Amino acid sequence: MSSDGCETNAAGRATLAREILSRESPTILMEAHNGLTARLVEEAGFEAIWASGLAISASLGLRDANEISWSQLVDVVETICDATRLPVLVDGDEGFGNFNNARRLVQKLDAVGAGGVCFEDKVFPKSNSFVEGVEQQLSPIPVFAGKIAAAVDARSSRGFAVVARTEAMIVGKGVDEALARAAAYAAAGADSVLVHSKRSDGADILEFLERWDSRVPVTLVPTKYPSLSIRALSEAGASNFIFANQGLRTIISALKANLAKLRASSDLMSIESEIAPISEVFRLQNLDELLAAEKKYEHFELRGRRQHERSEAQK
Amino acid sequence: MSSDGCETNAAGRATLAREILSRESPTILMEAHNGLTARLVEEAGFEAIWASGLAISASLGLRDANEISWSQLVDVVETICDATRLPVLVDGDEGFGNFNNARRLVQKLDAVGAGGVCFEDKVFPKSNSFVEGVEQQLSPIPVFAGKIAAAVDARSSRGFAVVARTEAMIVGKGVDEALARAAAYAAAGADSVLVHSKRSDGADILEFLERWDSRVPVTLVPTKYPSLSIRALSEAGASNFIFANQGLRTIISALKANLAKLRASSDLMSIESEIAPISEVFRLQNLDELLAAEKKYEHFELRGRRQHERSEAQK
Amino acid sequence: MSSDGCETNAAGRATLAREILSRESPTILMEAHNGLTARLVEEAGFEAIWASGLAISASLGLRDANEISWSQLVDVVETICDATRLPVLVDGDEGFGNFNNARRLVQKLDAVGAGGVCFEDKVFPKSNSFVEGVEQQLSPIPVFAGKIAAAVDARSSRGFAVVARTEAMIVGKGVDEALARAAAYAAAGADSVLVHSKRSDGADILEFLERWDSRVPVTLVPTKYPSLSIRALSEAGASNFIFANQGLRTIISALKANLAKLRASSDLMSIESEIAPISEVFRLQNLDELLAAEKKYEHFELRGRRQHERSEAQK
Amino acid sequence: MSSDGCETNAAGRATLAREILSRESPTILMEAHNGLTARLVEEAGFEAIWASGLAISASLGLRDANEISWSQLVDVVETICDATRLPVLVDGDEGFGNFNNARRLVQKLDAVGAGGVCFEDKVFPKSNSFVEGVEQQLSPIPVFAGKIAAAVDARSSRGFAVVARTEAMIVGKGVDEALARAAAYAAAGADSVLVHSKRSDGADILEFLERWDSRVPVTLVPTKYPSLSIRALSEAGASNFIFANQGLRTIISALKANLAKLRASSDLMSIESEIAPISEVFRLQNLDELLAAEKKYEHFELRGRRQHERSEAQK
Repeated sequence: MSSDGCETNAAGRATLAREILSRESPTILMEAHNGLTARLVEEAGFEAIWASGLAISASLGLRDANEISWSQLVDVVETICDATRLPVLVDGDEGFGNFNNARRLVQKLDAVGAGGVCFEDKVFPKSNSFVEGVEQQLSPIPVFAGKIAAAVDARSSRGFAVVARTEAMIVGKGVDEALARAAAYAAAGADSVLVHSKRSDGADILEFLERWDSRVPVTLVPTKYPSLSIRALSEAGASNFIFANQGLRTIISALKANLAKLRASSDLMSIESEIAPISEVFRLQNLDELLAAEKKYEHFELRGRRQHERSEAQK
Repeated sequence: MSSDGCETNAAGRATLAREILSRESPTILMEAHNGLTARLVEEAGFEAIWASGLAISASLGLRDANEISWSQLVDVVETICDATRLPVLVDGDEGFGNFNNARRLVQKLDAVGAGGVCFEDKVFPKSNSFVEGVEQQLSPIPVFAGKIAAAVDARSSRGFAVVARTEAMIVGKGVDEALARAAAYAAAGADSVLVHSKRSDGADILEFLERWDSRVPVTLVPTKYPSLSIRALSEAGASNFIFANQGLRTIISALKANLAKLRASSDLMSIESEIAPISEVFRLQNLDELLAAEKKYEHFELRGRRQHERSEAQK
Repeated sequence: MSSDGCETNAAGRATLAREILSRESPTILMEAHNGLTARLVEEAGFEAIWASGLAISASLGLRDANEISWSQLVDVVETICDATRLPVLVDGDEGFGNFNNARRLVQKLDAVGAGGVCFEDKVFPKSNSFVEGVEQQLSPIPVFAGKIAAAVDARSSRGFAVVARTEAMIVGKGVDEALARAAAYAAAGADSVLVHSKRSDGADILEFLERWDSRVPVTLVPTKYPSLSIRALSEAGASNFIFANQGLRTIISALKANLAKLRASSDLMSIESEIAPISEVFRLQNLDELLAAEKKYEHFELRGRRQHERSEAQK
Repeated sequence: MSSDGCETNAAGRATLAREILSRESPTILMEAHNGLTARLVEEAGFEAIWASGLAISASLGLRDANEISWSQLVDVVETICDATRLPVLVDGDEGFGNFNNARRLVQKLDAVGAGGVCFEDKVFPKSNSFVEGVEQQLSPIPVFAGKIAAAVDARSSRGFAVVARTEAMIVGKGVDEALARAAAYAAAGADSVLVHSKRSDGADILEFLERWDSRVPVTLVPTKYPSLSIRALSEAGASNFIFANQGLRTIISALKANLAKLRASSDLMSIESEIAPISEVFRLQNLDELLAAEKKYEHFELRGRRQHERSEAQK
């Protein structure tokens, strides 16, 4: 249920495609992994949400290796979309299979109100890009381009965005390969290309940006090169920036600290003053809307709105 | 995925509200309980589908007593809507709780492409109307009218229909009570009223139709009075007719017979010639669309459609 | 909910491993695709159930190409296991990914009460074995053997069976390849090997059986060679026989016929006498258990069982 | 999947019934609402988990008013049980309907590995106990006692606990009513009674404890009287203490602070040093188990374990 309790998923939501493609100024997509974190991201003033595969998996206690099914992912995304009016870009991994699995996922994400999906050119099942000691395998270009084309063809007319992510530089294939892949994916219809890197100096990213012909906007995930400023990357040509997991990591740190205090003290007062009050939980749940609706609907007054409109016709 | 494999749920579907409200000639809504039965109903030429609570429950091995959760019902309805372009009216029982549960169900059914929902004025959890020896309890009129109003307010602008069903005559309260309730529900915004009866002569139904002021169309479920013809009931004033469980009952009879033959003979040839061939299963699954899509997407030719469009821009 | 409404999934169920491995006489596993069909299979006297991937997909309106997610498959299997006490062997396709996806599926199927799973040595996503014009790809032997080993290691101690299916003869690789693969999978821990063929004379199957060293029992699916008798195949060395889709195909034929009659006549009486009565639906849903439970629990008499036991202690 | 990736839900888990009933020293059940928070609770050294309805609803962006379906609750509980070996007591609200809905929920929670459930004597759908301005309605004693009896009868033999919670003091009916209800629920088979209060001085709780005859242990939720120490409440006779929402409230506070920083600065470095590193996320996901399993299963060596065991038999 959206904030006011009475909207369907897709209604009244700026489409992500428009967000990504039309902005002059850089857009930050902030990670969320459930309805609550999505609402907090919205309240903090961000303009878009990244439904992170890593964060969603980790929050469920699972690994970022396609351990959740695609339909379980859709269920999580639904809670995110229901909780916010922000456009939501979903981390769709490699599409959970071939072009057919990918286009089914697009249809289902589109139906629950997501603003777009990002597919990466790895082979199912994936490993997280930052896992060491795992040989990451890339999909052949024509196969992944076909997946992007199928995704583009499967979306409704609502403005759903398809972002193509290349892992070429993650697996050590260099900037040339990344450029060739990005070009192919843009040609196949991608609304943006996401180029990923784990170099802390971001040198490969900067080279990519310099050489990219800008036919579609570039999206970056600066998890491993946080010291490069958004301003600098934006001036170098990037358009969108995904802050991919900082919410999750904040939660882990904060919970560990407070759970340790509670465990050591067995005393609720040890943290009571520093945590959100119950009333804040209720506010985030939009309890007021429910209380107002109870007044309106629980004992319906037929002498209200509709009765009036129709009373003449009843005679 | 709809018949052609490339449509979102709600697209290209005649809205049920329009179906119900605008027709001069009587409409039959034929029961289906999963994607396959929905497709067979469509192929047989029916104009609309009744997603029967009894049939869905029974097909899952469960009782018609809210043993499936509302979200499990939505999942089943999704397979039905994905498999057909017909409008689907969903048996929403009593709304799975109060007005708030009912309006959430409306939003979710609307999002998966259902054409409408029917709520009945019983108390959660329900019993099937034809179960003997159970005291069926009616919801107070203002409470159920509020549920209908909340359902109406919760739907999107897509044309989703809300049908209000009264069980007044099922629980022995007579035609006067049924008329009062139907009037209240119509005043609360229902697009149609469904009046239910278990009298085999349909006398109470005929009296209801004679006395009903026709402000909204009447829907009937003639399971218990099958000998009254649709023509006669239509001429008496009813607009829509739900054939509520005949598919399910056909399946039970046919399966019992063939399973008995197979068990007795241990011989596949004992039924091979009388059952649908595998090729018919494939046809109903729309396998051809998948095979064509594999040709198109599995090894994507960048020299295709998009490449052409964009080739100039790449220089 | 199981037949009596009060059992958990795994309780009181003969384990499939024991069924498959210990029998002298041939076992037929009859296809079911939801709770209702499972219950009818049990009532017909069969000893085990095959939760068919083709039938489950088709019943949902989907193709047999991993269009349902593994978690949606588990949900369907749960309704099957809840509806019957028979052991249920689940068609697990290729395991929905790699060894890790396969072992997760084993754990989840085990938890909902399935008796075992069958994995086939194809690559994800699969195509149905009988689809023409699709190049079916086999998994390398060490990769699929690893999947079987992981599945075996992941099951609980409850007796869950892991069956390894080779598609070697389906893809035209011949009996030698099938034997080598079956031997490797048995060595990896499979409780039975399923060897599949689409030859209508079953010559390759008979050769396989003659040359197989019988270290684990052989399971067959005689869909394409129905004229070979179970007795003959059993005497040739096969132990288990899957009647894989005859229930589904019965349903399609029967429904098409009756839907056509109803559509042509708009008259419920045209089929009323030949379909199961509502009372039979109620019986299959085990309604009597619910009515008895309502008497027992709806207005609990504290002077009953527990009150008595504890009345002394209360003083 | 449990920590080592290879256990089924119920295996190797101390049963909650035993936890609750057998301890001399007080037990704290710490709130968790998904797999991640459950694992952090376990690592912090707590002995048991409270799967809080308020926290689960809020984390999904929903209200604590039965907005999630019972099957969606089971799905969340499954992620919690898979992520920890601690016993998990589930907040089952009022059972999501009548005795039949409650016993179905027990069976499903039992199957996914929960250690027990707590039902409260309110009417479906519930409101959170601390919501002001809502008239909270209690279930008649014989009806709720029947629900407890049905829940007790529905559990498997694994040791699943049924806790009965009375809201008598929440709705202003006083200690006498709470004692009468607790006694009736214990007589119906509850393993523990939970008595709830919102008085900040806990005076009604202390009176209840003084007058309770101790036939079953008492569980408390000191959210509204955090200044009463666990030691004092324990000495007054309470056995179990639920810290019901402090994890959720910690998350809200911490996220709000860091999201504000990120929004203001657009600079990942503004929080990088204070949040958990990616390696800590991987550790909590038990990534090492997956990497080890890949070595073991991805390219299976038939000359390993099983090959050896069986090599003789192959000749």
